[in-house]
Amino acid sequence: MSTGLWLVGARGSVATTAMVGALAVRAGLAARNGLVTGGRVFEEAGLPALEGFVFGGHDVVSLPLAKRAEALAQGGVVPRHLPAVLADELEQIDARIRPGGRREGETQAGHAARLADDIRAFGEATGVDRVVVLNVASTEPPAEPHPAHASLAALEAALAEGAGVLPISSLYAYAAFRAGASFVDFTPSTGARLPALTELAAQEGLPFAGSDGKTGETLVKSALAPMFQTRELHVQSWVGMNILGGGDGATLADPHAVLSKTRSKGRSVAETLGYEVVAPVHIDNVPDMGEWKTAWDHIAFEGFLGVRMTMQFTWQGCDSALAAPLVLDLARLVARAAQAGESGPLPALAFFFKDPVGSTEHRLATQYDQLVEWARGLARRSA
Amino acid sequence: MSTGLWLVGARGSVATTAMVGALAVRAGLAARNGLVTGGRVFEEAGLPALEGFVFGGHDVVSLPLAKRAEALAQGGVVPRHLPAVLADELEQIDARIRPGGRREGETQAGHAARLADDIRAFGEATGVDRVVVLNVASTEPPAEPHPAHASLAALEAALAEGAGVLPISSLYAYAAFRAGASFVDFTPSTGARLPALTELAAQEGLPFAGSDGKTGETLVKSALAPMFQTRELHVQSWVGMNILGGGDGATLADPHAVLSKTRSKGRSVAETLGYEVVAPVHIDNVPDMGEWKTAWDHIAFEGFLGVRMTMQFTWQGCDSALAAPLVLDLARLVARAAQAGESGPLPALAFFFKDPVGSTEHRLATQYDQLVEWARGLARRSA
Amino acid sequence: MSTGLWLVGARGSVATTAMVGALAVRAGLAARNGLVTGGRVFEEAGLPALEGFVFGGHDVVSLPLAKRAEALAQGGVVPRHLPAVLADELEQIDARIRPGGRREGETQAGHAARLADDIRAFGEATGVDRVVVLNVASTEPPAEPHPAHASLAALEAALAEGAGVLPISSLYAYAAFRAGASFVDFTPSTGARLPALTELAAQEGLPFAGSDGKTGETLVKSALAPMFQTRELHVQSWVGMNILGGGDGATLADPHAVLSKTRSKGRSVAETLGYEVVAPVHIDNVPDMGEWKTAWDHIAFEGFLGVRMTMQFTWQGCDSALAAPLVLDLARLVARAAQAGESGPLPALAFFFKDPVGSTEHRLATQYDQLVEWARGLARRSA
Amino acid sequence: MSTGLWLVGARGSVATTAMVGALAVRAGLAARNGLVTGGRVFEEAGLPALEGFVFGGHDVVSLPLAKRAEALAQGGVVPRHLPAVLADELEQIDARIRPGGRREGETQAGHAARLADDIRAFGEATGVDRVVVLNVASTEPPAEPHPAHASLAALEAALAEGAGVLPISSLYAYAAFRAGASFVDFTPSTGARLPALTELAAQEGLPFAGSDGKTGETLVKSALAPMFQTRELHVQSWVGMNILGGGDGATLADPHAVLSKTRSKGRSVAETLGYEVVAPVHIDNVPDMGEWKTAWDHIAFEGFLGVRMTMQFTWQGCDSALAAPLVLDLARLVARAAQAGESGPLPALAFFFKDPVGSTEHRLATQYDQLVEWARGLARRSA
Repeated sequence: MSTGLWLVGARGSVATTAMVGALAVRAGLAARNGLVTGGRVFEEAGLPALEGFVFGGHDVVSLPLAKRAEALAQGGVVPRHLPAVLADELEQIDARIRPGGRREGETQAGHAARLADDIRAFGEATGVDRVVVLNVASTEPPAEPHPAHASLAALEAALAEGAGVLPISSLYAYAAFRAGASFVDFTPSTGARLPALTELAAQEGLPFAGSDGKTGETLVKSALAPMFQTRELHVQSWVGMNILGGGDGATLADPHAVLSKTRSKGRSVAETLGYEVVAPVHIDNVPDMGEWKTAWDHIAFEGFLGVRMTMQFTWQGCDSALAAPLVLDLARLVARAAQAGESGPLPALAFFFKDPVGSTEHRLATQYDQLVEWARGLARRSA
Repeated sequence: MSTGLWLVGARGSVATTAMVGALAVRAGLAARNGLVTGGRVFEEAGLPALEGFVFGGHDVVSLPLAKRAEALAQGGVVPRHLPAVLADELEQIDARIRPGGRREGETQAGHAARLADDIRAFGEATGVDRVVVLNVASTEPPAEPHPAHASLAALEAALAEGAGVLPISSLYAYAAFRAGASFVDFTPSTGARLPALTELAAQEGLPFAGSDGKTGETLVKSALAPMFQTRELHVQSWVGMNILGGGDGATLADPHAVLSKTRSKGRSVAETLGYEVVAPVHIDNVPDMGEWKTAWDHIAFEGFLGVRMTMQFTWQGCDSALAAPLVLDLARLVARAAQAGESGPLPALAFFFKDPVGSTEHRLATQYDQLVEWARGLARRSA
Repeated sequence: MSTGLWLVGARGSVATTAMVGALAVRAGLAARNGLVTGGRVFEEAGLPALEGFVFGGHDVVSLPLAKRAEALAQGGVVPRHLPAVLADELEQIDARIRPGGRREGETQAGHAARLADDIRAFGEATGVDRVVVLNVASTEPPAEPHPAHASLAALEAALAEGAGVLPISSLYAYAAFRAGASFVDFTPSTGARLPALTELAAQEGLPFAGSDGKTGETLVKSALAPMFQTRELHVQSWVGMNILGGGDGATLADPHAVLSKTRSKGRSVAETLGYEVVAPVHIDNVPDMGEWKTAWDHIAFEGFLGVRMTMQFTWQGCDSALAAPLVLDLARLVARAAQAGESGPLPALAFFFKDPVGSTEHRLATQYDQLVEWARGLARRSA
Repeated sequence: MSTGLWLVGARGSVATTAMVGALAVRAGLAARNGLVTGGRVFEEAGLPALEGFVFGGHDVVSLPLAKRAEALAQGGVVPRHLPAVLADELEQIDARIRPGGRREGETQAGHAARLADDIRAFGEATGVDRVVVLNVASTEPPAEPHPAHASLAALEAALAEGAGVLPISSLYAYAAFRAGASFVDFTPSTGARLPALTELAAQEGLPFAGSDGKTGETLVKSALAPMFQTRELHVQSWVGMNILGGGDGATLADPHAVLSKTRSKGRSVAETLGYEVVAPVHIDNVPDMGEWKTAWDHIAFEGFLGVRMTMQFTWQGCDSALAAPLVLDLARLVARAAQAGESGPLPALAFFFKDPVGSTEHRLATQYDQLVEWARGLARRSA
């Protein structure tokens, strides 16, 4: 089964790392570290192989992929020697990346149609069995609510009138579904999470997944919060401080854009524990961090007889290196779900996300159990 | 159902905190924080209530419980006002504590018989439905292997000859089983983990559980290691440093005794990950830490494309406050298991231990799922 | 030499801890830990003894000191038994605390006159040799500039017209100088740092010191930054995160008030290093922290051949316990300066402050050397 | 002034990094970060320029410098592109490295004579004005005391008899002095710290410095301990945990060799504070750390009224990158001292060492002040 991966933000760090990694792994130049679906438990699930992946995407920047890969190698995100070795293949992918931004004078309907055409054309040109669109672009500010979001009919009517009612991430989801592709939102942006788009996915029989890849601080939170919960240790406060550089750091320096992120990050603890907790989360742009991110969390909790104790952790991760394999995992899983006839939100993929669609489960181990069980179900279905 | 809790090391920090806590909770003077079996999911399991607990035990020291409780209050382990409020009840328990050490001229068989008599007499005098013996004494050095450990017959023969073949923790397990009591080893000592004693427990139809209560660093390890495993992040090294004071710190300053502990602590990571990891563990006696313990762990791991990342955590806990509620939980669970007719090792209690008998499961969430499932099974059985 | 300590915010945590501590030390109930001027090097400087201290002050709250002391004992800031032992003495001090807030209809000139009267009356009633006014009240937002701040004449003219031109901390400094008392600002508020007030201090021959007691994160910064500087390690970023509860936490939850603090905290690193550094500082109100404060700092620096390295520290301190002895030190030092005829800002006291008046020296060890040298100078003057 | 740097352990990480760095800096390919003597305050001291440095040395391994430099580049210690650029120059240095180990049948006197000949020949062949021998080899176990260490006469007599009485580091010091070179011990080994060798240095009019370069955890300790001391905060315990890989990690995995190191590391805190402190130091070999070292320190201290507080820090450094510039600094300073006629131990260089010869000063800032004062003194002497 060949699969087209259409990446929104195709020239960004996450997308480039994912491409370099997929190419390196299939050329035998890298191990499968970090690929969840590389685990033995997924062997029977009929997931499409990385070997059958074909990449394309939208972006608003024009820096060639090979240059981006070199910058990532400089920053220690990908091995030094890989960009040169993979330069030809990256150039071929680059030729399939289309400009994503809105053109002057274009209505939102026109913009969406063009994006959908790009996706459809990619599928046809490459002859892949199916296409998965994955949003790995920059985080948007929280979307303004609009009545046209409430139903597909209302949305189509508004678009037909030339209105611009969708946040850009949702426009991509709309275009994906219109082009017959499934959709994954790796960012905290709105994406497919509008009633109108859920309706469209159902109508087209397409699955979708999201939101906001769980790659660092929140990953650890979702592993630790159940410990406090099952041990009946009462968490009093859980403070998180994140410092990061790169494009992500710059985007999140915008106090409006950061809101989507801190909201998304703040949810899991209280939902796991079942009570409200003082849990401020900060994100600071510290340019010298480059592609690296450090999170410090301080957790105060009350044990037996009210004794107060604390735990702290520091996570020093490379966000793109953590996100990229998950993007490949999600493409495999969502393509397989589409093939197996699943449509709408995929709650079984909550393991990958800070704010999972169709699920309120935030406990990492439980999410993994659900993922594995779902993968076992896939194994029993015809491929 | 009334339950006798016979604590080996009854005047130590853990035992005293457990008693003070149980008395305080049932007097409505303290919340049930830290009590795992206080969770809603255990409500139907037919566990005996704290209200029906009667305490007794062995110890080699004679400092009265009420004094010990005051010292714990000074050290911030139990609330300041409680020791005075509970002084009368603590005095009553104190009267039931028997000297545990070997008397001059006593053979090990004679010692064991006396210990068993004490336990039996406690059960009869208090009229409790059943007795659980819980070892919360100091950590022993690793036991020397001995042929008499291999079977009950060999053990009885050796004892009959006046030989001293059992480590002291195992002598208590032997005495417990001989007195018809179930046994819990909260320390890393040998306890019931000898073929001869497993045979005896089976013969007497008595359940047992252990070893080494999971209260701090290893608890966190067992929550975090599965995160690395399911995310396919390759752990390269996991270094642990523990500093603690109190009696525990002094005991573990003995390089021989500390071996039991560091061995027990070192097991979980490699067993969870499924591969060998450089994982040194240090324990330092730092007297000014008092009843408090600080652990620092440094984890280095390799992600996608071999990118190296790290995580550190610092755990600042009060060991007695973490251990005491688990002692009460284990008494409830093991008493119920005995009532329900279970015998031999109880692998479903792995959640509580660093080195669980009858189980190789170290993943905390999975251990919890197994515990809950087992508790649900208990609910279906007649009480 | 007897000294009157007039504390602005006399019923707050810092003031109460300072009083409890001074009373306890002179009663032989506590050691002199944390008292800088308790060091041997200050023995010859002729500083007034704690034994001769008499306390009074202004406050806007009416909770009796003894109650406040009990709350501090509950929070672990002062030993449990002290408040009861010192209750009578605290009550006597309490009787000397006057309401500080502005009364309805009172002009700022009238308010100032009343405050000055209170201070003068305290000096006369107690017969102390001199009075030092110390501001340990809550942090104010940064003051709005006003033309009347530029000179004493302009200020007096504005006050005479009934205008309210001074921030409240400066009003206290004005009242202190008018009452013949020297002034110490332990907060980041404006206090005596206006040309008009510097002029007044000079005219009255009174010394003053400030601002913003250096008690935790900034203290460590001022010890560490010179290490990076003298080792020529180029600091790229220095991120600070502070979490604290108590009244201080609540005050600093106000985004306006916190500005004075973060500005004051941000200065030292760049001034020590001699170049600009990305150095964001956050302060979060986490009520369960009570009187305790935890700071986490992350420092990234570049060494030889551009190798990037990092250092992190976590400081877990009790702010009132760190501040209180410095308040007593400052009273001793400023009273002695006044006696020795010094007037105006005292740069030699930079060691105590985040944002020292009359000094740009932020290196802790150098500040200490300057303090010691100044104290040696005092020793040579007649007492 | 041209200076010969004769490095004992010339093909090790520290030596190679120092050489690569010196070559890169003088070629304008790298900044002077990390070079203490690059500071403005040393401009007038008449120190020899890096530009006049000529390298040679002893080693027991034969891996060419250029290969070692490549390995260091792989490990992130030196920039990727430098080894290739500097390959020719490194090869020239390599040709000047002589085998250091003892030959079969060679007496210690013979060994010393050969080493001295090598050093003398290097000086003559290169025509440098003077030679400084710097020991950057692996750490030795603590030396066994021997009567022959007590005086030069006793030493010469023992050597003449064919005895092997000197630890290898001391043999290099002896050879250096015999060859008219000054000596710096950057390791905790014995080096010149024997009465016999001090006597020899005096006799030859040669200066020496050491021991044990202060590059990480101890550096931070020496910056922080004075903070606790001057603030009269009573340190109760100061626990240090070090994890490191590389050759250094492997050497220190030897429990005997590590003793020199932990003793050297343990001294500074108690000497600065003036009282004994529980201060265990651990060093663990964790091979995956490569050339990197992480130290975690936990400091517990008592403040006003006995309130207990803590501080922790984590230092993540690249030891070779921290040590290398200090090696160059020391060569400059010691060469200048020799030129200015100083002989014997140089206490003014305590700033660079964990265990400074001729000095008990451990406070970093005070050490820096002494260094600067000494450098100012040099400026006043004829060059």
